[in-house]
Amino acid sequence: MTPTDAQTACFEAGIKFGSLYHQFAGTPVTPASAPSLARAMEEAIENQPHCVDVTVDVNTELLAETIEAGSATYTELTGEFIDVELTVEYEKITVVAEMELVDGYPLMSLGSVDGSDCS
Amino acid sequence: MTPTDAQTACFEAGIKFGSLYHQFAGTPVTPASAPSLARAMEEAIENQPHCVDVTVDVNTELLAETIEAGSATYTELTGEFIDVELTVEYEKITVVAEMELVDGYPLMSLGSVDGSDCS
Amino acid sequence: MTPTDAQTACFEAGIKFGSLYHQFAGTPVTPASAPSLARAMEEAIENQPHCVDVTVDVNTELLAETIEAGSATYTELTGEFIDVELTVEYEKITVVAEMELVDGYPLMSLGSVDGSDCS
Amino acid sequence: MTPTDAQTACFEAGIKFGSLYHQFAGTPVTPASAPSLARAMEEAIENQPHCVDVTVDVNTELLAETIEAGSATYTELTGEFIDVELTVEYEKITVVAEMELVDGYPLMSLGSVDGSDCS
Repeated sequence: MTPTDAQTACFEAGIKFGSLYHQFAGTPVTPASAPSLARAMEEAIENQPHCVDVTVDVNTELLAETIEAGSATYTELTGEFIDVELTVEYEKITVVAEMELVDGYPLMSLGSVDGSDCS
Repeated sequence: MTPTDAQTACFEAGIKFGSLYHQFAGTPVTPASAPSLARAMEEAIENQPHCVDVTVDVNTELLAETIEAGSATYTELTGEFIDVELTVEYEKITVVAEMELVDGYPLMSLGSVDGSDCS
Repeated sequence: MTPTDAQTACFEAGIKFGSLYHQFAGTPVTPASAPSLARAMEEAIENQPHCVDVTVDVNTELLAETIEAGSATYTELTGEFIDVELTVEYEKITVVAEMELVDGYPLMSLGSVDGSDCS
Repeated sequence: MTPTDAQTACFEAGIKFGSLYHQFAGTPVTPASAPSLARAMEEAIENQPHCVDVTVDVNTELLAETIEAGSATYTELTGEFIDVELTVEYEKITVVAEMELVDGYPLMSLGSVDGSDCS
């Protein structure tokens, strides 16, 4: 079947998450450099079509613990260090999606899909 | 509203596209190395949850022309060089999505969303 | 032969350039989001061992022209849009290296290698 | 001081390592998909200037253990899973460099720098 607007909005939200994650995973990061990285991630992904808002929170405490436990002075960004919430608007549909750590594994999920024709 | 299975399936398809694109964009590539890159892209993304098939076709003719026109012996992978089709199965929903060059710009879109409960 | 300190310092400078380029190439960017991306690139790579300074300048004029000429509202970061200068200190050696656009192609090169034992 | 050919060769070797690492870190990988990823990494980086050989070995045993210990069916490529050796030839200089796991941390280092004018 032809996709509905709501389905397309969800597809667009997924694209943003995959982009954000795989563009920035592996970036050298410390608690001190986390804010500039978070800001760049937000502004980069907000450039993508239909993406109206992105919020990236870096868990700097976990970052500090991880660096403390290792032999280097920094670590590499992975999903375990970030919470992300983003909002996509496509036609009359608004999708909110998030990424959170669930059982030690970063899980991307749809929060809500709202709009006048939300099938 | 709570997302339907079909919406979640479309979200998952979007994640795969964003991942594939932003993981591999920028890779040094020539017509000779294109096949190994295409295969790695397919197998990497097929590892992701609910992704049952990925096909990557590299336009080696355009690649050759681009290299010919430049001053280097290779170029970097961008969306203009690849056609991608992928299939996601989530619960009883099957989503087919593709990326193609439209007006010189790589466009990711949902092809079809099918299943017993496809709202 | 066993590498000299100066050779190791140059190797380290190269690592930083390859990292910076391939971590961030492909990021969605506009003139408005370029400053946050440049700052994140600088701070990320400065985390790496022996790297004491990184300066990234984005050519926002070329960025604007490229976006104007295309069908999207943003473009993806490639080497043609950025000038980079970085400084590595290893043992008693200081290396300055840069990336600039030469004949339309981003060229990474060593600027100077200085120190007490600079062979 | 102006860089010597040997120093430039070492700089070039560093570029290849940084590129390889940050292009491919974060790629979804399993023991089954590791060979195609390793091959793509080798062929991609061999495209870069002055790079005559790249060998990537994936530690599929460690990969399997890591996946076993987690809640997902795959993991993401990081430096702990790969050994890399690469050879750069620049002017009359040959540089061999490698990346190996040292104390749980992937260390890139120059192996040898050889040639007629090797200062």
